[in-house]
Amino acid sequence: MNANQTGYLDEVPWNEHQLVAAIAQDAATGKVLTLAWMNREALEETVRRGEAVYWSRSRRRLWRKGEESGHVQKVREVRLDCDADALLLQVEQVGGIACHTGRERCFFRRLDNGRWVDVDPVLKDPSLIYKK
Amino acid sequence: MNANQTGYLDEVPWNEHQLVAAIAQDAATGKVLTLAWMNREALEETVRRGEAVYWSRSRRRLWRKGEESGHVQKVREVRLDCDADALLLQVEQVGGIACHTGRERCFFRRLDNGRWVDVDPVLKDPSLIYKK
Repeated sequence: MNANQTGYLDEVPWNEHQLVAAIAQDAATGKVLTLAWMNREALEETVRRGEAVYWSRSRRRLWRKGEESGHVQKVREVRLDCDADALLLQVEQVGGIACHTGRERCFFRRLDNGRWVDVDPVLKDPSLIYKK
Repeated sequence: MNANQTGYLDEVPWNEHQLVAAIAQDAATGKVLTLAWMNREALEETVRRGEAVYWSRSRRRLWRKGEESGHVQKVREVRLDCDADALLLQVEQVGGIACHTGRERCFFRRLDNGRWVDVDPVLKDPSLIYKK
């Protein structure tokens, strides 16, 4: 992606928190990995570096996905939806783990007879992922 | 899905607008179709009826997906993410059109050399979808 042009940032109607929702989908498997948020700076850096950068609402700072875990998301494609309030990223999930719980993806709870049931395995103990 | 139990609704930490983000993914193709929002009533009805019901933020009312277009989303699975602020629905998209623009899905604009480019075709003229 050519990152010299940044006019595309102006076409995103940033919400009242100056954010846009960003879905990350595994480019190889098609699985939806995460839903996170980007501000203007995060999207610009994502496009420029080709690696997903989000805005952490809890930590109130840029969150370079994988900065601690090494589980970087290499971005293959960025799409915008019809009303421009959501992005869809096709990513290569380094390490095969997107979730801070050590699972492949964050959507590991399935509604089953009125209860949320964990249905995906923990692939790596989070204490081994996050050394701090 | 057994809709008699509604305790699962209490486990969703509805945001400041009493909403949660809901991603709809085509169960057959794996394509991400839409990102919309649900309130408690929308999620309860989605699960009970097995068809996607959202909260329309612009119209400020329940939005039974397909109520005008017939493009209903039959829900095969509902998942919740790790911090419970997003849902992922596996759906059967009736009519093969999820977007109000007459396209297969809402994510039809791809970032290409710093510009958003429409890359998916209009499958049906919206004026033929929405008669009102």
